[in-house]
Amino acid sequence: MKFVISQEMLKSQSSLFYEENEAYSGVNKIATKVMHDVELVFGIAPKSTTEKKMLGKTAVLYGTVNHSTMLQELEEKKLIDLSEITGKREVFLFQVVPHPFEGVEQALVIAGSDKRGTIYGLFHLSELLGVSPLVDWNDVRPQQKDSVSFSGDLKYISKEPSVRYRGFFINDEWPAFGNWTNKNFGGFNAEMYDHVFELLLRLKGNYLWPAMWSARFSDDGPGLANAELADEYGVVMGASHHEPCLRYGEEYKYLRGENSIYGDAWNFISNREGITKFWEDGLKRSGQFENVITVGMRGEADTSIMGKGATLADNIQLLREVLQTQNQLIRDHVNPDLSEVPRMLALYKEVEPFFYGDENTPGLINSEELEDVILMLCDDNHGNLRTLPTEEMRNHKGGYGMYYHFDYHGGPISYEWINSSYLPKVWEQMTMAYDFGVRDLWIVNVGDVATQEFPLSYFMDLAYDFEKWGTTAINKTDLYTKQWIQRQFEGVFSEEDLKKIFELLVGYTKIAHNRRPEMMNASVYHPVNYKETDLTLQQIDDLLKTADELYKQVDPENLLVYFSLVYYPTVGNLNLQKMWLLTGKNNYFAKLGKMEANNLATEIRACLQRDRDLVEQYHTIDDGKWYGMGLSEHIGFINWNEEEAKYPVLMSPLPANKPRLVVTIDGTDQHNEGSAWHQNTVYLNDFLQPNIDEASFTISSISEMDAEFKITCDNPWLTLSKTDGSLDGKEKTTDVIMVKIDRNLMNEENVGKIVVEMPNGTCTIIVNASNSDYSEYPEMTFVETNGYISIEAEHYARNVEANNEQVNVNAFLTLEGFGKTRSAMKAFPTTEYFTPGKDAPYLEYRFVVQEAGDYEVELYMQPSNPVRTDYTLFCGIQANEDDIATVNVLPEGYRVDDENWAVGVLNNIHKHTSTLTCKCGLNTLRIYAMSPGFVLEKLVIYPVGKKPANSYLGPTETYYVAK
Amino acid sequence: MKFVISQEMLKSQSSLFYEENEAYSGVNKIATKVMHDVELVFGIAPKSTTEKKMLGKTAVLYGTVNHSTMLQELEEKKLIDLSEITGKREVFLFQVVPHPFEGVEQALVIAGSDKRGTIYGLFHLSELLGVSPLVDWNDVRPQQKDSVSFSGDLKYISKEPSVRYRGFFINDEWPAFGNWTNKNFGGFNAEMYDHVFELLLRLKGNYLWPAMWSARFSDDGPGLANAELADEYGVVMGASHHEPCLRYGEEYKYLRGENSIYGDAWNFISNREGITKFWEDGLKRSGQFENVITVGMRGEADTSIMGKGATLADNIQLLREVLQTQNQLIRDHVNPDLSEVPRMLALYKEVEPFFYGDENTPGLINSEELEDVILMLCDDNHGNLRTLPTEEMRNHKGGYGMYYHFDYHGGPISYEWINSSYLPKVWEQMTMAYDFGVRDLWIVNVGDVATQEFPLSYFMDLAYDFEKWGTTAINKTDLYTKQWIQRQFEGVFSEEDLKKIFELLVGYTKIAHNRRPEMMNASVYHPVNYKETDLTLQQIDDLLKTADELYKQVDPENLLVYFSLVYYPTVGNLNLQKMWLLTGKNNYFAKLGKMEANNLATEIRACLQRDRDLVEQYHTIDDGKWYGMGLSEHIGFINWNEEEAKYPVLMSPLPANKPRLVVTIDGTDQHNEGSAWHQNTVYLNDFLQPNIDEASFTISSISEMDAEFKITCDNPWLTLSKTDGSLDGKEKTTDVIMVKIDRNLMNEENVGKIVVEMPNGTCTIIVNASNSDYSEYPEMTFVETNGYISIEAEHYARNVEANNEQVNVNAFLTLEGFGKTRSAMKAFPTTEYFTPGKDAPYLEYRFVVQEAGDYEVELYMQPSNPVRTDYTLFCGIQANEDDIATVNVLPEGYRVDDENWAVGVLNNIHKHTSTLTCKCGLNTLRIYAMSPGFVLEKLVIYPVGKKPANSYLGPTETYYVAK
Repeated sequence: MKFVISQEMLKSQSSLFYEENEAYSGVNKIATKVMHDVELVFGIAPKSTTEKKMLGKTAVLYGTVNHSTMLQELEEKKLIDLSEITGKREVFLFQVVPHPFEGVEQALVIAGSDKRGTIYGLFHLSELLGVSPLVDWNDVRPQQKDSVSFSGDLKYISKEPSVRYRGFFINDEWPAFGNWTNKNFGGFNAEMYDHVFELLLRLKGNYLWPAMWSARFSDDGPGLANAELADEYGVVMGASHHEPCLRYGEEYKYLRGENSIYGDAWNFISNREGITKFWEDGLKRSGQFENVITVGMRGEADTSIMGKGATLADNIQLLREVLQTQNQLIRDHVNPDLSEVPRMLALYKEVEPFFYGDENTPGLINSEELEDVILMLCDDNHGNLRTLPTEEMRNHKGGYGMYYHFDYHGGPISYEWINSSYLPKVWEQMTMAYDFGVRDLWIVNVGDVATQEFPLSYFMDLAYDFEKWGTTAINKTDLYTKQWIQRQFEGVFSEEDLKKIFELLVGYTKIAHNRRPEMMNASVYHPVNYKETDLTLQQIDDLLKTADELYKQVDPENLLVYFSLVYYPTVGNLNLQKMWLLTGKNNYFAKLGKMEANNLATEIRACLQRDRDLVEQYHTIDDGKWYGMGLSEHIGFINWNEEEAKYPVLMSPLPANKPRLVVTIDGTDQHNEGSAWHQNTVYLNDFLQPNIDEASFTISSISEMDAEFKITCDNPWLTLSKTDGSLDGKEKTTDVIMVKIDRNLMNEENVGKIVVEMPNGTCTIIVNASNSDYSEYPEMTFVETNGYISIEAEHYARNVEANNEQVNVNAFLTLEGFGKTRSAMKAFPTTEYFTPGKDAPYLEYRFVVQEAGDYEVELYMQPSNPVRTDYTLFCGIQANEDDIATVNVLPEGYRVDDENWAVGVLNNIHKHTSTLTCKCGLNTLRIYAMSPGFVLEKLVIYPVGKKPANSYLGPTETYYVAK
Repeated sequence: MKFVISQEMLKSQSSLFYEENEAYSGVNKIATKVMHDVELVFGIAPKSTTEKKMLGKTAVLYGTVNHSTMLQELEEKKLIDLSEITGKREVFLFQVVPHPFEGVEQALVIAGSDKRGTIYGLFHLSELLGVSPLVDWNDVRPQQKDSVSFSGDLKYISKEPSVRYRGFFINDEWPAFGNWTNKNFGGFNAEMYDHVFELLLRLKGNYLWPAMWSARFSDDGPGLANAELADEYGVVMGASHHEPCLRYGEEYKYLRGENSIYGDAWNFISNREGITKFWEDGLKRSGQFENVITVGMRGEADTSIMGKGATLADNIQLLREVLQTQNQLIRDHVNPDLSEVPRMLALYKEVEPFFYGDENTPGLINSEELEDVILMLCDDNHGNLRTLPTEEMRNHKGGYGMYYHFDYHGGPISYEWINSSYLPKVWEQMTMAYDFGVRDLWIVNVGDVATQEFPLSYFMDLAYDFEKWGTTAINKTDLYTKQWIQRQFEGVFSEEDLKKIFELLVGYTKIAHNRRPEMMNASVYHPVNYKETDLTLQQIDDLLKTADELYKQVDPENLLVYFSLVYYPTVGNLNLQKMWLLTGKNNYFAKLGKMEANNLATEIRACLQRDRDLVEQYHTIDDGKWYGMGLSEHIGFINWNEEEAKYPVLMSPLPANKPRLVVTIDGTDQHNEGSAWHQNTVYLNDFLQPNIDEASFTISSISEMDAEFKITCDNPWLTLSKTDGSLDGKEKTTDVIMVKIDRNLMNEENVGKIVVEMPNGTCTIIVNASNSDYSEYPEMTFVETNGYISIEAEHYARNVEANNEQVNVNAFLTLEGFGKTRSAMKAFPTTEYFTPGKDAPYLEYRFVVQEAGDYEVELYMQPSNPVRTDYTLFCGIQANEDDIATVNVLPEGYRVDDENWAVGVLNNIHKHTSTLTCKCGLNTLRIYAMSPGFVLEKLVIYPVGKKPANSYLGPTETYYVAK
């Protein structure tokens, strides 16, 4: 007999949920939320009862092992077997049982191994009913249903979550989150945190760092209400890396003073007594709750603990004393058995050297003070992991944590406005963390939470079920995205429109991955080379169009959800990118004197206005539900923070005093106004690539006067889309002339000539074309036709695996959609160092150059940091039969936080150039994996000293003999 | 009895002028023009008669020695003594005689030693009547008079002109002059040249190079009419440096062809016969007239005669053969005695090396082919002489000529639009030419003539009367300018207004001297440093205001003259300079995000419109008298010619999304928006200089929202012009805050603090001030107060003369108003090389630095080229008691036409930096004259590596202990 929940049943039955008095109060509160979910689905509110006899024929029974006589009773009746979950961590049994009690024909039993197990089990029911985890946070409305049925023999036991502590950090909460909560809840209080905890738990998280730049979690509840509510729900509270002993940063500011018992200096040297007392009282106050206690100490406001003059040894000794003091306080006031107290030390910024020490000074690594302490590592604040545990370090009993960022307030440039994280990157980095043994704590900085729901969901699901989404689930982020969209919008949009939403989410995050909006400016993308600006603009315009179409057709009830989860982050991101791309064109065209710049200026103004309108809408939609959440500055950062941010500077060339036109060769920076005196020549070289049969040039106004042009071409193999025309410099400032080639008509000719007559003279376009047949070369051979070769890493000729001593297969795998253009290649297992010629897998590329000589190969790589403190990242490079060169692809002395690093995170690329000796004709190039973190996106090969034209994305891939 | 010409006399008398039939027809024609002048002055046309008896009681008698029986008769009557002028060159006797003939009571006798002597004498009468030499060309109206009287015993004998051939070159005549003459005269014909010849002769010139880029002087008359008219007037015709044998450049283009007797190649190797025939026919045709025949040969259109592959020796040999051929043709067809035929070879561009040869290849110098040939040297096309004759070379029998430029069509940037030449520079260069023995031919390229009348007059007067205006007349260009203005505008403007016109002419030419308008762009002047842009803008605005005031008050009759001679060149120049200066500010402010940029953009648009309106007015005023003369491109040259010229690019920063202001410290590039988080500090250091007691900073809008500021300062010795205010970013975008210091109130304080509170945070201005008393130092001691010292060269402490073996006094003299800022120092005699410690004069500067150490001294010098082919320009530099360092102030390998040269002529400055070792406290620096051409404008001293902020004019002069 199926277990059915239906409208009919709900109407007819007095109570569906059985509430035990002995149950955790937090569990009962969650059950109430789930009952509300049921109401959302069926339109009828289920009732709960504390008396079994009040239950109807169908019942939902929930409880926690050792906290439920009801569960004991069912076990005694052999209806369930609690031993399957008892002693496990955060596990639930989800089972349909017949006749649990008298009068109850069938019941759904949700049994948790512990408090969170039960809660996850309850929310599991909601999910099965089609309720999104974002039902409360984003008001995602589930599809209304008449009934939902489960198999009568349904029995499901959940897994233990992959990562022990999983959660997020509300940070950099001003101006956005702070204004939001002040307006909607009157402060950083429990009313607000109730929603945050619910979000966390529905996402199967268990761990939270609360807002802490102005808020005091333990005081704002009011009083301890925040902490008490967290504890009730089973939310394990942490504090950020510089908030030890359950004290939040603002607390000391608040309590310090001349007459304070805590003294008036955040200084463990000059005010050891006061600080110790401060910690002690924190532990006494909050030690009763479930926490991961931060240990260690940093200076105020993210600064170093001792002054600049102190030696490494001084610092290490001081930190050791801090840890000793803290451990003793924890023993005294929380638990005499330290091994039972979850503690965390962040290896962040300056703490990292104190941990590792140097050649002469042993660090805190392996010290007894850190036994059982979770060592929290971190990314570089921009989504790239820093050092990871070596094989030896992985034995550390306390395990490791990872502090990751979807939001950051710091250098080189902050990003706090809107989601700009890209799932394939999150996968690539966080799976590596897990593989390196970082499995005890994952925390992600989500800034204001709003707009981060999408990547946050992914992060939490990855941490909860690494088997499903982790290392072996390569290239599954698209699948995840589709499922996530389905969960939010099933029934709201058609299947086809859901696909469009998929395009939007992948589209905007990919473009933001190429460059975060805060880091955009007019000089990022090249305005003309390789048409990278125009092609990106085209993508953006297509996506914006799609977003607007869906906006128009979504019903008002679902508009809010569509707006907050899709439209606002998509359009917010893309419109800003568009504004800067147009500004780059405007500035470039203005310097050429093109009147088109003026039309672009109008578009740019519209983008800025749209940005403001969009934020305004975000702030006012649904009575201000998201009020404040769009307040973060996001335009034109020139410092790490918003200070003196620069808005687009529109450029307007004054019109020339006579009719003048200019020819530009699209995709290149060639421009020419013609001459009455000399032969002015530009070159159209696209047709040198045999796979290209259409190219273009553009004629633009330099004045606001009518100006005519005439184009002639005597080569029968070239066709022009237009042979004359007129521009007025106002309405019509530009004309794109398409040129098509018919190689069948070329005969022996391979140079064509297009003559453009303009009022100010004549410009000659030399058309270089190739009719060569390259089929003699093996497939996947790149042929140099125009001075360089550009290869997407995925387009290898051979991908060669290797085995190591343990007979693991070491291999490069394709990361689809990863990186700035097409995809990327990464070697697995990600934890291994490989030796070329022995156990290193390699990629082999084939290419043909027209002249023998020295060539540069420029590797484009994801901007990984080294996983070890040796600050090197090696790969092997081998041209033809040459020896394998072992190359550190990072600059000498590379360090996270240095300028090379900053350029890497801003541009989201590392580049490295080596020299190859090439033969005329066919060559091979092998790239061997060596260090972990080597992720190859693109290769560009060109004669020494003849670098192809500048660009942000790198030269477009060039011709190859296709498969 | 006074000789009186009066209205009354003219009314009563039948004829005033006596015209001899035997007189040169050209002289009679000139007399007619003078009679017209008399009519302009007195309102009554005088008559002339060929019969003595028709003369009245008062007569004007003119004639040429050996061409006048009348003069013979007077001499026989002992009334005049022709021996005083006979045999002299271009001299006239101007004498009042009693009773020359029966019935004539008194006569003015104008007797010329030759045809031009008589003509100059006739025009001398016009000048004495108050008629400007520009009466015909510019329609300058003389003051109307009732009578003019000369002393009854007036006798004046003119001098022989200082330079033998003196004239100008109409060049680069398209689009301006060409359109002008086509419209007004129907071509380059004699009707037009009549005016040009008249202008030349009234300016006491005798030599002309006609327009030659499209025109054919010997064909366009029509026919030979141009040449015949020139000959009639005594105008000696020349041709430009590449037009030998009385053939103009276009002629060959016109006559060449497959079946032409002259062949079809301008090539003395492949077409020697045809070219020789071409020359022969030219000489046959035009040899009858008075000419200076160009000899030598260049390639077509200013190119080299042989290809690039040819050796120096090949070229020299070919040129020698050319000269031999030409000399023979001249002997055959003009005069067998070559020494009687004025000939000229231009040592221009590539011909220069052919003349000098090199170590291994003797050049044409001293060759017999060049005996008696005037060797024409030239400037660098930008007003700086190139090589000059060495003492030895000055013995060359043919003498030397100089080809100078007020207009140029070529690199680095052409200037053809409007006068931009500055008399002090012309004086400095042309006196040097004369001193170096260049006295046989002076020709100046005046482009289209129009707007060049002012410097052209000066050039011609200097050539005519070097004793009056030359080397000994140092610093007399202001006097010349005043006299010139008097001549054009006496009676039209009040004395006070004439002074204003003086300010206009000196003002605009000085600013154009700093940078010619065609060479201006937005990056020339620094937009803020040292306020050089604002100070220049202030000068320009004052001048524009003056020009407009005079424009409004001049009576319509004289408007044309005022417009063409003053208003158009002044406003044309200054408005354009203003446009670019504003564009520099606009661009700079836009990049800071200042809304003020938008207001500036409006002003820039107005400047461009004014430029167009002004040219339009020039073209239409007085029925199109100057139609076409303003057509030359003059905005935004990025190539040597107008192709692809770039108009100003206006920049408009989009307004920020919240009220934001920025503080800028005027005269520096410091800018700050304040911070809510950090102490943001900028520095106001003006008061470190004891002579400065007022400085300023500016607050500007970054958004279009109302934004308030509040300024506080607790230092009683500082006073602010304002302590609060508000900007709206639209109407009111900026506020300048004046800061005054009262040093009496400083006491011990020397650091003040001004705090500016703005919506986005606080900015602190640290005011560093000095109350030091430097009177301990001797006068003219410069004291370093803010990191550097800037000295106007004129502000030496000692100017020490020296004697050479010939007991000449060698001395530095001040060139007032010369150079880019205040004046300049140049050593005389200009021809000498001096030896420091022996015969070198020197300038001694005193300065105080706060720290001992190595300092740089940067010399700012007029961009002279070396007078010798060794391409060096030395001076001596001596710090304190150190040895005198002999320094070549030109870069190693400097050549005219290279990049260093180009930068020099564009910026109108050469800079050279040497290192000095300075003591703490008082130091001396001596600068010794060594090579000719060393003209020192400014010295800047700063610690090594601490160069003061960038600027175009150099740092403003810093504090010194005044006299």
